[in-house]
Amino acid sequence: MKAEIVAVGTELLLGQIVNTNAQFISKECAAIGVDMYFQTVVGDNEQRLLDTFRLAASRADVVICTGGLGPTQDDLTKDVLAAFVGRELVLHEPSMKTITELFESRGIHMVESNRRQALMIEGSDPLHNETGLAVGNAFTYEGTHFILLPGPPKEMKPMFTKYAVPWLQAVMTDAVPLYSKMLKFAGIGESNLEHQLLDLIEAQTDPTIAPYAKEGEVTIRLTTRAQSQEEGEKRLFPTEQAIRVRLADHLYADQDVPIENVVLQLLEQKQLTLSVAESCSGGLLSDLLTDVPGSSKSFLGGIVCYSNALKHKLLGVPMEILEGDGAPGAVSSETAVLLAENLIATTGSDFGISITGVAGPSPSEGKPVGLVYVGFAQRNAETAVFTLQLSGNRESVKHRAAKSALYQLWKQLKDH
Amino acid sequence: MKAEIVAVGTELLLGQIVNTNAQFISKECAAIGVDMYFQTVVGDNEQRLLDTFRLAASRADVVICTGGLGPTQDDLTKDVLAAFVGRELVLHEPSMKTITELFESRGIHMVESNRRQALMIEGSDPLHNETGLAVGNAFTYEGTHFILLPGPPKEMKPMFTKYAVPWLQAVMTDAVPLYSKMLKFAGIGESNLEHQLLDLIEAQTDPTIAPYAKEGEVTIRLTTRAQSQEEGEKRLFPTEQAIRVRLADHLYADQDVPIENVVLQLLEQKQLTLSVAESCSGGLLSDLLTDVPGSSKSFLGGIVCYSNALKHKLLGVPMEILEGDGAPGAVSSETAVLLAENLIATTGSDFGISITGVAGPSPSEGKPVGLVYVGFAQRNAETAVFTLQLSGNRESVKHRAAKSALYQLWKQLKDH
Repeated sequence: MKAEIVAVGTELLLGQIVNTNAQFISKECAAIGVDMYFQTVVGDNEQRLLDTFRLAASRADVVICTGGLGPTQDDLTKDVLAAFVGRELVLHEPSMKTITELFESRGIHMVESNRRQALMIEGSDPLHNETGLAVGNAFTYEGTHFILLPGPPKEMKPMFTKYAVPWLQAVMTDAVPLYSKMLKFAGIGESNLEHQLLDLIEAQTDPTIAPYAKEGEVTIRLTTRAQSQEEGEKRLFPTEQAIRVRLADHLYADQDVPIENVVLQLLEQKQLTLSVAESCSGGLLSDLLTDVPGSSKSFLGGIVCYSNALKHKLLGVPMEILEGDGAPGAVSSETAVLLAENLIATTGSDFGISITGVAGPSPSEGKPVGLVYVGFAQRNAETAVFTLQLSGNRESVKHRAAKSALYQLWKQLKDH
Repeated sequence: MKAEIVAVGTELLLGQIVNTNAQFISKECAAIGVDMYFQTVVGDNEQRLLDTFRLAASRADVVICTGGLGPTQDDLTKDVLAAFVGRELVLHEPSMKTITELFESRGIHMVESNRRQALMIEGSDPLHNETGLAVGNAFTYEGTHFILLPGPPKEMKPMFTKYAVPWLQAVMTDAVPLYSKMLKFAGIGESNLEHQLLDLIEAQTDPTIAPYAKEGEVTIRLTTRAQSQEEGEKRLFPTEQAIRVRLADHLYADQDVPIENVVLQLLEQKQLTLSVAESCSGGLLSDLLTDVPGSSKSFLGGIVCYSNALKHKLLGVPMEILEGDGAPGAVSSETAVLLAENLIATTGSDFGISITGVAGPSPSEGKPVGLVYVGFAQRNAETAVFTLQLSGNRESVKHRAAKSALYQLWKQLKDH
């Protein structure tokens, strides 16, 4: 089945945003055996949009459109596509109800243009939008399947995975699906991981082994073709086992989840609690943890002891440790230990993590950008300190420091 | 001058990489007055590549191709384009010399296929590649200007800026550069903002007015054509003023910066300090603030009082307010006030912001997802509470709550 993505939006043509939607959809399509032939970006212009739809319909079996479903005047996708296929736009009552209720609940007047977001092409299937207001559409016209999705990635992505993929699979007849599995690693860099698997990677035929890195974690995607999950698992098994044996200390999940989810799950299973004291990571570790629904079961909270004053006032680090000639300073293993130990004394949690370091862009206390100490305290055990030298800009250092702390906690918990 | 980008590469169609090249080139083109009409991605396939060139040549004055200039079998761009325009491929001697020398210096045998990287379309101008081996090309065929660049961004970007842009400017006769300005708004939704500017937006000709929304903030881009910044500013002035007058309470910057940067700047100017107490936002507000270099000058830190235990222990909220029949609960204006007031008493900061609410996915204390209270305390002034009903998933609620808190602080500071 041949597919084409049509991304609509002048902001893409002006280079204001990157077309990450196209990558996401292409990946998802590959995973279900849909072959992507073209990706096209076109602006908010009626004639060019129409020409683009005509061309796409002539050369693709599936046309997936993103963008231009919003409330404003330059959101033309539905109007132009309706004109192209000769159908009317009709109101999708459930979406209209959601929109109306939302405005009522906020006590603000609903502008009439918002109604546009609840319009659908006549005879299409609605694709529910759980994170936004514009409803998606899917329909077939003269043998071509059209899928319409909003542009914002946080709306488009869940809609595509949850509703568009099953819709596509229902209309597909011939493709042998790709079967993929993600293995997730922490505490190891991409090149080191690749080095340890070099013989496997060089000899790969089926499954394929594709490593890629995000800040502070590495993913390996194993891919084969299979008609069922069972068959897929069987084909992946020998390769997966070989990797597991070599990298047991780093492999924290066999699905695409961040390490914070796994850590919180382990804490909950073992009925243990956590609190954190963050200096250079500035709240990011707490933010990552609280992004996980249900984190309140194990995560008590934390202290963003960004200034030395708060390290002293809230966590009792003596000023003579923090400042002055010959003092270890805020960025030191001494401070990391005191922060973590006083933290668990203050919050009563089972584990306490502290992070103090130099996020940059400039050195601090004469210490280089990227130097970070992670303190790790637990009741009835000695406090540990991990010294890291991280690379990257300010946001990278924050991110890598938070992920490293989570990795240390995971290592503790998995054998706890 | 109408332009089209043709990105060649199956890895783009498989979603293995994001087409950041298209964004880069589009931005650069806008800056020199070249109008981007389409971006197309096509795979390493001879027939589809030929069709794509034919279509692009029929509708664009400039066709900018990236990718497919490498040494391997599936690098087809030059071969196909040469066939399309009916010219031969010829060797570019200086590039060949560089390639040969490189292999010699490394003491490795040069595979014959590397020669392909030094080939050019007959009669084209070479575009020098300082960070890689494949030479770029630029030429004009039947009124259409073609530019060929390699795919790796670290080769393509410097080549485009240093060699393709001047080449383009030399062949352009009519273009006047675009001049744009971003106006940034907080505390107002996209549709409401657009409603207030509807007459301006409907009447727009020059400058154009393009609103778009990100989580918790709205941007308007004003665009005109001008030969100088001074002329550009002059042309934008009346429209910008009209917008400023109507939305003075929301317009926090006239450049593309997040509101936390502006808030921190105002705090520093006025020598005021801030601390935050975060429940449902879980550290995100601290994280946003500490992403800004130099934030330590005004931001002391905060307390992530995620559990009721920490709201009580660290910020002295009585348990009978937080829990029990008839108690206001953790999500209440009473709690928001106490958190903010006890926070500034504890940290000694001039301003204290508290955030408590229901981030979801489930209701809490019988209160709906998205209900958030922002407490705002300052020394020698009454504490204020703002009640928000936010939409979206867990991460959206956290984000919008943090941005709303920053908006309230900005409003205070701008008239302080």
